[in-house]
Amino acid sequence: MAKVSVDVQDIENILALNPRVRKHSVLIPSIATKKNKAHWKRNEKKCQSCNLLENDFSDIKPTTLSERGALKEAARCLKCADAPCQKSCPTQLDVKAFITSIANGNFYGAAKTILSDNPLGLSCGMVCPTSDLCVGGCNLSAAEEGPINIGGLQHFAVEIFSKMNVPQIRDPNIKKPANFKAKIALIGGGPASLSCATFLGRLGYQDVTIFEKQQVLGGLSTWEIPQFRLPQHVVDFEANLVRDLGVKVEYQRSLSSKDLRVDDLIKHYDAVFIAIGLPTPKINSIFKKLTKTQGFYTSKSFLPLVAETSKKVGCSSMCNSLPKIHGTVLVLGAGDTAFDCATSALRCGARRVFVVFRRGFQNIRAVPEEVSAAVAENCELIGFLSPHKVTLKDNRIFSVTFSRSEQLENGKWITDDEQLTTLKADFVISAFGSGLEDPDVIEALAPLSLNDQNLPIVDSKTLQSSHPKVWIGGDLAGVAETTVESVNDGKTAAWYMHCALEKLPKDSTPQLPLFYTPIDEVDISVEICGVKFENPFGLASAPPVTSPAMIRRSFEQGWGFVVTKTFSLDKDEVTNISPRIVRGTTSGHNYGPQQGSFLNIEVISEKYCDVWLKGIRELKQDFPQKVVIASIMCAFIEEDWKELAKKAQDCGSDMLELNLSCPHGMGESGMGLACGQKEELVFQICKWVRSTITIPFFIKLTPNITDIVTIATAAKNGGAWGVSAINTVSGLMGLDAKGNAWPHVGASRRTTFGGVSGNATRPMGLRAVAAIAQALPGFPILGVGGVESAYSAFEYMQVGASAMQVCSAVQNQDFTVVEDYITGLKALLYLDGKLHGWNGQSAPTIKHQKGKPVQSIRDSSGKFLPHFGHYKKQRDQILSERLKEKVDENSINIEKVNLTTNNNSTTITSIIGRALPKIGAYKQLDNTQQVVALIDDDMCINCGKCYMACNDSGYQAIRFDPESHIPKVNDDCTGCTLCMSVCPIIDCITMVPKQIPHVIKRGILKPAIGISPLD
Amino acid sequence: MAKVSVDVQDIENILALNPRVRKHSVLIPSIATKKNKAHWKRNEKKCQSCNLLENDFSDIKPTTLSERGALKEAARCLKCADAPCQKSCPTQLDVKAFITSIANGNFYGAAKTILSDNPLGLSCGMVCPTSDLCVGGCNLSAAEEGPINIGGLQHFAVEIFSKMNVPQIRDPNIKKPANFKAKIALIGGGPASLSCATFLGRLGYQDVTIFEKQQVLGGLSTWEIPQFRLPQHVVDFEANLVRDLGVKVEYQRSLSSKDLRVDDLIKHYDAVFIAIGLPTPKINSIFKKLTKTQGFYTSKSFLPLVAETSKKVGCSSMCNSLPKIHGTVLVLGAGDTAFDCATSALRCGARRVFVVFRRGFQNIRAVPEEVSAAVAENCELIGFLSPHKVTLKDNRIFSVTFSRSEQLENGKWITDDEQLTTLKADFVISAFGSGLEDPDVIEALAPLSLNDQNLPIVDSKTLQSSHPKVWIGGDLAGVAETTVESVNDGKTAAWYMHCALEKLPKDSTPQLPLFYTPIDEVDISVEICGVKFENPFGLASAPPVTSPAMIRRSFEQGWGFVVTKTFSLDKDEVTNISPRIVRGTTSGHNYGPQQGSFLNIEVISEKYCDVWLKGIRELKQDFPQKVVIASIMCAFIEEDWKELAKKAQDCGSDMLELNLSCPHGMGESGMGLACGQKEELVFQICKWVRSTITIPFFIKLTPNITDIVTIATAAKNGGAWGVSAINTVSGLMGLDAKGNAWPHVGASRRTTFGGVSGNATRPMGLRAVAAIAQALPGFPILGVGGVESAYSAFEYMQVGASAMQVCSAVQNQDFTVVEDYITGLKALLYLDGKLHGWNGQSAPTIKHQKGKPVQSIRDSSGKFLPHFGHYKKQRDQILSERLKEKVDENSINIEKVNLTTNNNSTTITSIIGRALPKIGAYKQLDNTQQVVALIDDDMCINCGKCYMACNDSGYQAIRFDPESHIPKVNDDCTGCTLCMSVCPIIDCITMVPKQIPHVIKRGILKPAIGISPLD
Repeated sequence: MAKVSVDVQDIENILALNPRVRKHSVLIPSIATKKNKAHWKRNEKKCQSCNLLENDFSDIKPTTLSERGALKEAARCLKCADAPCQKSCPTQLDVKAFITSIANGNFYGAAKTILSDNPLGLSCGMVCPTSDLCVGGCNLSAAEEGPINIGGLQHFAVEIFSKMNVPQIRDPNIKKPANFKAKIALIGGGPASLSCATFLGRLGYQDVTIFEKQQVLGGLSTWEIPQFRLPQHVVDFEANLVRDLGVKVEYQRSLSSKDLRVDDLIKHYDAVFIAIGLPTPKINSIFKKLTKTQGFYTSKSFLPLVAETSKKVGCSSMCNSLPKIHGTVLVLGAGDTAFDCATSALRCGARRVFVVFRRGFQNIRAVPEEVSAAVAENCELIGFLSPHKVTLKDNRIFSVTFSRSEQLENGKWITDDEQLTTLKADFVISAFGSGLEDPDVIEALAPLSLNDQNLPIVDSKTLQSSHPKVWIGGDLAGVAETTVESVNDGKTAAWYMHCALEKLPKDSTPQLPLFYTPIDEVDISVEICGVKFENPFGLASAPPVTSPAMIRRSFEQGWGFVVTKTFSLDKDEVTNISPRIVRGTTSGHNYGPQQGSFLNIEVISEKYCDVWLKGIRELKQDFPQKVVIASIMCAFIEEDWKELAKKAQDCGSDMLELNLSCPHGMGESGMGLACGQKEELVFQICKWVRSTITIPFFIKLTPNITDIVTIATAAKNGGAWGVSAINTVSGLMGLDAKGNAWPHVGASRRTTFGGVSGNATRPMGLRAVAAIAQALPGFPILGVGGVESAYSAFEYMQVGASAMQVCSAVQNQDFTVVEDYITGLKALLYLDGKLHGWNGQSAPTIKHQKGKPVQSIRDSSGKFLPHFGHYKKQRDQILSERLKEKVDENSINIEKVNLTTNNNSTTITSIIGRALPKIGAYKQLDNTQQVVALIDDDMCINCGKCYMACNDSGYQAIRFDPESHIPKVNDDCTGCTLCMSVCPIIDCITMVPKQIPHVIKRGILKPAIGISPLD
Repeated sequence: MAKVSVDVQDIENILALNPRVRKHSVLIPSIATKKNKAHWKRNEKKCQSCNLLENDFSDIKPTTLSERGALKEAARCLKCADAPCQKSCPTQLDVKAFITSIANGNFYGAAKTILSDNPLGLSCGMVCPTSDLCVGGCNLSAAEEGPINIGGLQHFAVEIFSKMNVPQIRDPNIKKPANFKAKIALIGGGPASLSCATFLGRLGYQDVTIFEKQQVLGGLSTWEIPQFRLPQHVVDFEANLVRDLGVKVEYQRSLSSKDLRVDDLIKHYDAVFIAIGLPTPKINSIFKKLTKTQGFYTSKSFLPLVAETSKKVGCSSMCNSLPKIHGTVLVLGAGDTAFDCATSALRCGARRVFVVFRRGFQNIRAVPEEVSAAVAENCELIGFLSPHKVTLKDNRIFSVTFSRSEQLENGKWITDDEQLTTLKADFVISAFGSGLEDPDVIEALAPLSLNDQNLPIVDSKTLQSSHPKVWIGGDLAGVAETTVESVNDGKTAAWYMHCALEKLPKDSTPQLPLFYTPIDEVDISVEICGVKFENPFGLASAPPVTSPAMIRRSFEQGWGFVVTKTFSLDKDEVTNISPRIVRGTTSGHNYGPQQGSFLNIEVISEKYCDVWLKGIRELKQDFPQKVVIASIMCAFIEEDWKELAKKAQDCGSDMLELNLSCPHGMGESGMGLACGQKEELVFQICKWVRSTITIPFFIKLTPNITDIVTIATAAKNGGAWGVSAINTVSGLMGLDAKGNAWPHVGASRRTTFGGVSGNATRPMGLRAVAAIAQALPGFPILGVGGVESAYSAFEYMQVGASAMQVCSAVQNQDFTVVEDYITGLKALLYLDGKLHGWNGQSAPTIKHQKGKPVQSIRDSSGKFLPHFGHYKKQRDQILSERLKEKVDENSINIEKVNLTTNNNSTTITSIIGRALPKIGAYKQLDNTQQVVALIDDDMCINCGKCYMACNDSGYQAIRFDPESHIPKVNDDCTGCTLCMSVCPIIDCITMVPKQIPHVIKRGILKPAIGISPLD
């Protein structure tokens, strides 16, 4: 008979690729590996001899992130103090704050932070030369893992927000300017004007008009930045946010002696902002007379043509033809625009593109990320060449001859016309920058004072021109070189226009309003035991409330309530040992913030009781709308409890929390958990306190107990108004290799068991709250334990908590996290159930690789093609064939679902405890409704984690193809879900209802029937 | 009187830079930010006009990692199935296994894995073109975070191992070859021969001699790869490992008609391996007659001169002079060697370096990382130029004239001699590859058959030459292009030499021995209740032991014992629901493996009892040395327990484990935790079982209990032989935004509380084991809960566990992790206390940034200079000044501490429980021995996490300089340790004894004395 402990052949076959411990060194001749590695290659360059990019306008940004990518990247951010990233951002984005929100899954909060300082935050997330701005200052550059992908995070957050379909509104709490009816004209519909209009709209100006030359807004974003770097739907989204504020737009109006003239505008408008860019390309004289039909373009003539078709703007029927490019293209210049021209040319049909520039590599002005992208697409770079002569043949460009340029020892550059190099070319695209030369426009600028380049003279701080009613921004103002700087010009001008209109001194502190939407109007106040909490987020009795002054600061940052650090009667005075708060080891070798847990052996407050009583009194005087809960502790002595409770009530506390749960130190003095683990003592203490005071009081419960519900019940029976659950979990965090625990005290290196806090304890906290809420319906609970985000708070509320206390998350960061929790909770309530397929603020996952949408492609035999090696090449070929027919932008396309008709958000009270009816006994779970795993081949990154987990911790129900590394679930799947749990890609594996009969492999038949193998 | 709830001015000042929630958008004119960002810049290029690199031979590898960097990077690795990285490595390194070991802090294990397949694993970690090899296949390229820095990890692990000073020895368990006295000659002391010698030595050959032309081993590694990419101490370390095996070396012996001749060698040796490289540079004819004094070098004449001085090899007094280079240098070629010449030239004094090559960027042969490094050092690249003419002036090179090269449409390259470009140059270094032209050497190769390039004809699979006693490797064999391929040639040749010497068929499976050291000889077997465990690592009763066949596989991978999945009498048959095992949320948004926790609602085995009984019988027959512990469960019914225990004993189990702790499902049937939470029931069940069987049995304890010691005591009193602690922790992992917990079952989406496992539970597990071990000395404990590494096992042992059970770590990966645990535990025991300043396998942290050593530098006024912005520039200048005087390699220099005289490792039994005497009551901790935080400015990355944590969760005792972002701890520090706990850099903050009096800020004086503010 077959052995039951030996796998059958089928399973042996499945196991073939499962890892084994090596007993010997493995030998493969080098010649074989040279061949093998090509099969697995993931970083191979694209085919050099064939341009596969024609008509391909899909995203090429290396920064684009999926939700998983964004969450991981955001978690990596240190959220630095006085962060250099934000000091290096022209719009002063609160980078730390928006990344905090992303890390916490609060994408609305992130978008709000971004759009508050930069109304074009999505565009800028995509096109900012971040390595020269925010990223250039990132402190993580000093660590091996390198700086944060700030642009990608910014892009991600605002893109997700854009799918929420939430409009911008004016914050009704901001007082309108006296002169709110002032007439304001903004000339040019590019980033500077859109930004300026936004801030004017937020301030409350109601008569703001943008005059745009073309028939679509966006300016350079629309017409010059290619679709694969900045899709048009992004520009449209941002333009719509501006319109949300009531800003008017007039199209096909331009600054020109024939249309809008400054001298005329200042007669009819109270303030004028001019940001029309620099419309005239700078051209080397040898190209002056050449035309498109001869093969000559400038960036200013080429890129808009590419935009028309690829972005479907400014054209009706003609939208289907890109500039017809072929053969060899020379792009002249080394700025970002040159590289945009180069990569665009490939998409218009060029076979080979050379970017030719006057100086060396060290002098390339374009940001490194743009250069790398062009090189990755096989563009060639040639430096030290200066255009000398162009040769035509049949009236078309045939070649360009260059002189060699050279840098002398003294740093000066010279051009040597005796050293000539000729490059054959079918097309030349000149991208040598631009200026203002159009006499119509120059004339229209009068009466403004101009400099020697015909540009208006501007105060670089206020952006005011020589005329007090006219401000200048963007390229025209001479400072901005990037979109984000233009945006900041608009912002700057908006403020100083406001100062002028309102007659504020120019040096008054700028108070530009934040981004605001209906989400911000959601009410998240709660009432507990008759006490009103403006929001349900409070600080737990812990290190963040070490002193009353810290509580003051926390209130200033927005916390709804605090529980004070536990204080006692002075006779129970304590002295802390040190060290006493250590990092957790529960999330692996994680150094720095984002600790998954902490362990502490800190005891209660060292301060005198009177400090707390006085402090609470002051705080309640200064912050009457905030809730102060005094945490107190005594031994099991009636008069002590009565005395301290009375004092704590009399100083003005809104509520008390009786700490019957501190797991270390205090227990040895008969306090804390020494009381809290015994029902009778809890009951008795509650009776004493109830008989003494009239304000509500809560019992803080210990999780170090067999059944927390019994203690909660005792508290209720004793007269407590509610409970806080849970205090820290008793633990020993870890030891060094010499057997000393950390923390250890003094020369003898002794320790004691401490209290574990943070995310590691949240499953216990959620369970405790749920169990108490089910057993004692209506009995108020304050949730504690791993509350680190609006989402985790939402979880606590759904299992029955009315408000939440936070400590570890503040230890990991600072008091400002509460702002993220507030916006996050509002967004969860606003969106609740409205967006199909979303989970809270998480959008449904699109099929993607690296965050970019992918098409599912099979070869001619119908076999799925993965994303590496020769499969990748086949994919590229097939995709290229498909693209030959039509332009494809392949942009991320999350189904836009309209919010349900009624925009009322869910009330906060309605979510408290709403999950409870679905939590119950194991036997209530239906074992006839089984699920199985389903793997999405397109999202799979072929790591085989599912396969390994299924083999060594499950059911050997996944095959792993040895050539394609595509896993496939077979009929043996029992739905255990481990594969999904270890899959690195969100939603690559999902659990779906099982369609075949559920046969359990119980093994051998019972002896009565005769033993025979069943499986 | 001042308010106690308002911070005093001192603290307000400290708080100035602490984050605040923004109430308004922040406005700074773009012109100001342009200036500000320069101050914070961390990615600025080095000064272009000044060469600061002269004499600087410190590490320039972007891959170098500190311990923190390595741990983080290793944790990121997915440890893929059938991993493409290892398939793309010429030596087939088990990359997944060594990265697993690094992630687990088992650096010896990692080094052992690396050196097993690649005896030059440290060199290769530093110089491999990994993007073309392992990294090129990394599956994480398909995710946004990008591929793993495999080279850096390899470098890190072997470098740390090298500091352990542990010799290589021959594995005594491997049978010596019959012909072990065969005389073997290896010609050339480079990577191929060192590798070949290693494997021959490991196989047992005792008469192996390397003949080396120079007076130092290493070949190309020593003479051509620059110090800043491959320091000489690395080459020496690897050469010493070869010598450890008894390999002999004869220096200044070379293959030459005048010395070693093949025809002679084959007479005196049984096997000969020739790997002398390609000694003759290929030179364009225009340079043929030029000399060094005229300014002409080849890579073969230049790099060895640089090596001599920078590596202090091959020279005695002359070691202090690098080649004197100045002015402009042209390096010709586009391979890695060309870039080595370019960056070396800068270090010899060149002001400007141009790398000039014939083709385009797309054709550069050097790996991208080398090119980027050269560009970062301001080297200029010029493509499409082919040398045409050299011009001398005063008998020195004055300029080189190049023809333009061009690629035709058909792909062919042509040179156009009519388009000439002249580049001025003071020096030319030609790096166009090399060949074999020396007639002395060619003559010495006789009687081998040569090809038309005078290279020996070789079988590319076996590397055998035309003569059966001669094998060829490295460059000479024509396949290898990299160090790692040469190493593999040596490995390949070693095996086929062995086959020939032992007369094995050429197609026999290669069985080359692994790397072996005295660490591998450490005995880690334990005896528990009289049962011998070959190692203390077993699988817990959980999904990894779902079937007896899985246990078989786990034994094959090396697990010392298993506890079977819990089985019951068939009358208690269960059926699982699905989904049932979900990822933890306790480590943040962590997708993929390395889950910090799991939650499951899986119940006991679905299989019939007989399957388990039969399976155990088979396993014990086939693996008599392995320990099988049968896990069983019944309700509180005497006859059931007796029947099942008897059956489980009779089938041959070594021990039983009574599952009295399953937290979900079973409890409702009166089983599992329903029994285990009550002392009386535990006592009674133990009595019943003790009365029935004679083999040892353990009770698996639940942590969901007020005092686990009481249950352990009841078990002991009832007759149990020991306990297993802990089972899973009851919890609720999380909910979706609609209030459905995960997992949820069926259409009604119901759930039940589940069991949390993994790292999140380890603090509770350690505490439980420690508490039981202290209460019941000598009572055996099996540790369970978050055992994920040798280190965590070591922690469990130190608090009293005799052996450990694992589940979640296998769920995260696979059975092979046990090999890492075994080598890791051996290393911990071997090193225990021997290395000064180490913690286990972690070396003391050197002062570093990005893993590279830094010097502490102050400006002329004594102010510390941080590592960004203009401070960085000042640092560069000062360092450059210092270097002008002498060559500095600035290599990582961990103090090499010799192992103590006696190499006996600590015994495993001596560590069990050794931490217990230091764990006790809080009141035993000495509050007079206080500590304070000390920050290392040199390691600081200026993030201010310490500052923020201290402000909002502590004592406002850290100042943060607004300009330099250097934090400084003041006298108010109370040693709470939170700053250290959130600092991202290991050992940047340490806690040191407090030197000033410890004054506690208790606040107001007591009323009796009068209220007045003290703080």
